[in-house]
Amino acid sequence: MSSENIAKVAAQVAETTKPVSNKKASKKKNDQFILKTPKGTKDWSDSDMIIREGIFSSLTAMFKRHGAVTIDTPVFELREILTGKYGEDSKLIYNLEDQGGELTSLRYDLTVPFARFVASNNIANIKRYHIAKVYRRDQPAMTKGRMREFYQCDIDFAGNYDLMVADSEILNIIVEGLTGLGIRDFKVKLNHRKILDGIFQACGVKDEDVRKISSAVDKLDKSPWEVVKKEMVEEKGQSEEVADRIGEFVKLNGSITEILDILKTSDILSTNESAQKGIEEMSILADYVSAFEIDQFISFDLSLARGLDYYTGLIYEAVTQQSAPPKNAAELKAKAAKAKKSDDEDASEYVGVGSIAAGGRYDGLVGMFSNGKSIPCVGISFGVERLFSIIKSRITSKLDSINSSQTQVYVMAFGGGEGWNGLLKERMSITKKLWDAGINTEYLYKSKANIRKQFDAAEKSGASLAVILGKEEFPQGKLRIKLLGQGNDSDEGELIDVEDFVKVVEQKLSEVNKDGLDEITRLIRNL
Amino acid sequence: MSSENIAKVAAQVAETTKPVSNKKASKKKNDQFILKTPKGTKDWSDSDMIIREGIFSSLTAMFKRHGAVTIDTPVFELREILTGKYGEDSKLIYNLEDQGGELTSLRYDLTVPFARFVASNNIANIKRYHIAKVYRRDQPAMTKGRMREFYQCDIDFAGNYDLMVADSEILNIIVEGLTGLGIRDFKVKLNHRKILDGIFQACGVKDEDVRKISSAVDKLDKSPWEVVKKEMVEEKGQSEEVADRIGEFVKLNGSITEILDILKTSDILSTNESAQKGIEEMSILADYVSAFEIDQFISFDLSLARGLDYYTGLIYEAVTQQSAPPKNAAELKAKAAKAKKSDDEDASEYVGVGSIAAGGRYDGLVGMFSNGKSIPCVGISFGVERLFSIIKSRITSKLDSINSSQTQVYVMAFGGGEGWNGLLKERMSITKKLWDAGINTEYLYKSKANIRKQFDAAEKSGASLAVILGKEEFPQGKLRIKLLGQGNDSDEGELIDVEDFVKVVEQKLSEVNKDGLDEITRLIRNL
Repeated sequence: MSSENIAKVAAQVAETTKPVSNKKASKKKNDQFILKTPKGTKDWSDSDMIIREGIFSSLTAMFKRHGAVTIDTPVFELREILTGKYGEDSKLIYNLEDQGGELTSLRYDLTVPFARFVASNNIANIKRYHIAKVYRRDQPAMTKGRMREFYQCDIDFAGNYDLMVADSEILNIIVEGLTGLGIRDFKVKLNHRKILDGIFQACGVKDEDVRKISSAVDKLDKSPWEVVKKEMVEEKGQSEEVADRIGEFVKLNGSITEILDILKTSDILSTNESAQKGIEEMSILADYVSAFEIDQFISFDLSLARGLDYYTGLIYEAVTQQSAPPKNAAELKAKAAKAKKSDDEDASEYVGVGSIAAGGRYDGLVGMFSNGKSIPCVGISFGVERLFSIIKSRITSKLDSINSSQTQVYVMAFGGGEGWNGLLKERMSITKKLWDAGINTEYLYKSKANIRKQFDAAEKSGASLAVILGKEEFPQGKLRIKLLGQGNDSDEGELIDVEDFVKVVEQKLSEVNKDGLDEITRLIRNL
Repeated sequence: MSSENIAKVAAQVAETTKPVSNKKASKKKNDQFILKTPKGTKDWSDSDMIIREGIFSSLTAMFKRHGAVTIDTPVFELREILTGKYGEDSKLIYNLEDQGGELTSLRYDLTVPFARFVASNNIANIKRYHIAKVYRRDQPAMTKGRMREFYQCDIDFAGNYDLMVADSEILNIIVEGLTGLGIRDFKVKLNHRKILDGIFQACGVKDEDVRKISSAVDKLDKSPWEVVKKEMVEEKGQSEEVADRIGEFVKLNGSITEILDILKTSDILSTNESAQKGIEEMSILADYVSAFEIDQFISFDLSLARGLDYYTGLIYEAVTQQSAPPKNAAELKAKAAKAKKSDDEDASEYVGVGSIAAGGRYDGLVGMFSNGKSIPCVGISFGVERLFSIIKSRITSKLDSINSSQTQVYVMAFGGGEGWNGLLKERMSITKKLWDAGINTEYLYKSKANIRKQFDAAEKSGASLAVILGKEEFPQGKLRIKLLGQGNDSDEGELIDVEDFVKVVEQKLSEVNKDGLDEITRLIRNL
């Protein structure tokens, strides 16, 4: 029975819970299959979600600061939309089964769907951000934050603007976004496709070979020059001399002006149109980058090539310093082990997660969807899983547990003995009044709850106030409001009238949380 | 060439942008395929996203008020996880293509992945909410908000709690959630699976026929009793008498106590264990519902059966009044037409969108993943697309356009004539200072921008303040701050020193937006 047929059967078997037999799914004795998520995917626990949402809200606030709006597109697209946009990597696209109807595939990134959106809505200019999951059937490497399902945080500017103005704002967004997440030990590597292609041409590479030589150069961050040169000469048919000339250029990196000075003095580039155009644009960019005062984060690196086909101008990649593991690496490992789950991620900062943001200018992509009527675009994609890895390990080193519920008040009943009914309905209506006032409130779902259990639950919830209904006090229209948390055990609480208890609770809560920030935002900001 | 093979080829064709030929994809002359999203899916425009995010933030805030935490699970699950959980509807599950490796399918709801999560993490109790997309290969009906990709907003309580305590809080959450979205014209229909099954048994339905008779009764909201009776007798082999006895019960609806009084007097139910257990639980619920003061929204309706197999106790569904189209139906249609896009949705309120929230108690589902060691669960799922349809049509009738960018300040340069350079770099560094102060700021991406263009862009951005760099004033360390928007055209602006301009901007912004609410939140609250 072929796997296609198995798939069909699987879809039909409906009335039974007995799992369909399947060459891959491993079973336990009792025919109970192992409960796992698909390869390269993961569940996000409540405490991980707190960090992820902290990252999202920080980036979203920044995107809005720059006047961007957000859109959403389907998780899957018509297959032809994705076909031929990703070069060699197209083999990593997830296809949906043909169950009759259109052929569709899961989106591989947010850039192609964005271009499709701009083209199909005839949009002349837009600044849009999009935070969503994308899918790649790659070999997962959880420790490096490389997943098959992962989040991208993209912002792209589409429209005809003056040279390098939007590009320089995107560079500022990288710096503003990462520093806003407490990450300061990074460099933004820049290069320009026009300069790179010009160099290849000037060094004697035939036009039809330029892209494949470019992808060879792209490997320089992983492999030494000798290996890359070997690939150019032996696999990609360039002469020793051509390779050596290229080698002289691609080893260059430094500030934009430093590298520009070198390029401007190059004889072989002086006659290359593409290179000269790129050099002109980079000189303009240098000016704007200094206006934004982000020079110290920028490195003009001629070895940066970027894999994707659709880039046409400036390209960039933000990398964290991976020179050495952080001082507290050992401590982190220990904590990670203690925390048991997702220690992969805690490990990933010091195994090196690669680039944490990457992007560039792509002026031709929208045209592929609109009869060549193109709209210039430039953008950046932040890698959420990798940012998450770094931030989580830093938080873990500061904090043993994050309270993932944001409960503020816990409503309890104290009593017992003759005719004690637990005041459940009374706890319900008191709690209801707090909900209606917009206050996060819980109570124990037992008709008769003992005092210890209620305090334990309150502590677990992270509430900072307890509202206490006493067996004698409540019938007389009185409530007790008590501070919870360290140092407040002795606090007897304050006895007040039921009428004005909501006002008192609001008052006390505002005293407890002065800056109005939630725990995680405060934490991430101060990382 | 079979469609499977076509699919395989499509995945491989990578180096070309020419779309793979495919029986379904319709092409334009010039081999340009039509730019559409897959059937039953849609793009969310920036102005639609503002409304959607307004809905999400309102529901999220409420979920947190009840002490819930959030988790996330992958968009696709191992296929066996989903198999046999959805009865007849399992045929609507989307399968991913078998590209080697595990067989996977897109999630059909958020409930089964939640149960899988609870089981695989051995969680004893959790209150979790989850806002995410789910997938059903159903016949789409955009006008009724029935999509193939759509959002669910779920909250579920898992754990062993006292009878009906969690259930009643979920009912309160439905009311709190909908009223918080400005929706007040709804009823929450309740029924209890134990009572319903008891009725079927007591009326003479064999145990093995109970589920299929239940699904016949479920059709009573669409078909008259005669049709449903016909199905029971002719298709599902019940006698006339049995059907008529059932008919006497399922036509009953009213307040919980009203219906309970009737059920308690029924002789044939008095000896049915299941019915008596259900009646006992409903009496407890009646008590808690009155403690939460939500009685007026509740209707105990014996015709409610709910399709899904996994419910074991209380079941419920919130429906809006569809008696008549709203007074302003015509007006809405007109506006919708004017707005051109997504008039489907604007229409959907008065074509009737069906239930806007639905759920129930499912005590057996977690056990299907954990060798029978089960955790009782109860939850509710809000239908975002349907809420969106209702809210959008109400907003459209109040508002012509929603400003989807949240820009606060627009930085401009005024000048011209001899040696005027447009002050682009100066606009950049002034804007940078506002970004760093957390203020949403834009400027025109032109080196020399004329005054008219800058004011148009500022108005389009919705900014309420302009910061103006004058050709003579700025070199003297002076800036002009001007109010934008209706009635401020005459305002010359205030000339201030560059040093303290950020403070002045913050001051003026706080005056403009006193309550600190964004437009959409204020709007939805007051619908």
